[in-house]
Amino acid sequence: MNILGIDPGSRITGFGLIAADKLKFNYIASGCIRTKGELPERITTIFVEIEQIIKQYQPAVVVIERAFMRPDRPNPDAAIKLGHARGAIISAAGVNKIEMAEYSPNQIKKAVVGRGHAAKEQVSFMVQEVLKLSQAPQADAADALAAALCHAYHIL
Amino acid sequence: MNILGIDPGSRITGFGLIAADKLKFNYIASGCIRTKGELPERITTIFVEIEQIIKQYQPAVVVIERAFMRPDRPNPDAAIKLGHARGAIISAAGVNKIEMAEYSPNQIKKAVVGRGHAAKEQVSFMVQEVLKLSQAPQADAADALAAALCHAYHIL
Repeated sequence: MNILGIDPGSRITGFGLIAADKLKFNYIASGCIRTKGELPERITTIFVEIEQIIKQYQPAVVVIERAFMRPDRPNPDAAIKLGHARGAIISAAGVNKIEMAEYSPNQIKKAVVGRGHAAKEQVSFMVQEVLKLSQAPQADAADALAAALCHAYHIL
Repeated sequence: MNILGIDPGSRITGFGLIAADKLKFNYIASGCIRTKGELPERITTIFVEIEQIIKQYQPAVVVIERAFMRPDRPNPDAAIKLGHARGAIISAAGVNKIEMAEYSPNQIKKAVVGRGHAAKEQVSFMVQEVLKLSQAPQADAADALAAALCHAYHIL
């Protein structure tokens, strides 16, 4: 089954696709959706690109990092921007009838690195190791691949 | 031209359609999209229903209330929920290539009632008056109609 992980952001949304079965994980594709312009253009770009990736790779599930807001540093502007990007992604998955799964940032780190408070570099390193990539993926793509791997570990 | 106003919310999204020309405003339709279930289902419902309204009524523009967060009471959870709903609405307008306009809550109240700090009941009353409705619209639908009227006042 193909698993599409997504790291949402209003400026950069990372995506990462893996194929998973009981015996192995294979890297398929990853990258970043970079948006520009005003809000409607940015959000529409995310929707359109995610829908295109879904149509091309037919994932069985879309995995997205659960929105996590630091309670000690509330930032409603950042929250609403992240919400816009997530709304576009969830819509794209929903209208294409793709199942969705959510994991917290700590669940993803713990699944991939073994510790819930791992640094971003460690996540990227483990993603590269497990998927046997010749070089480290771009940071947002690495987080997206980590989300996909986390789901694979949970269901297989 | 048809103007579609929307009052976004993850549980209830109000919508209101008016036809506007230089001489008059006519009420076309209004109502609420009520969502249920888990997050993906809620957000997808908003996207699907808004897209259906767009296809049915072919508005020239979609008007949405600008997200306003009270800086003295930051609530990131509420912000992200609102962001999800807005992301679905913006995506539905964007993929259907409908122009978007945003106004702040105070701009909408000021345009419709004459004062930026009018009560919700005053907004509803003025919407009913201007559009010659036989009864007051439901609250979220009234806010959506007010957003549509605000845009009509600004462009005509």
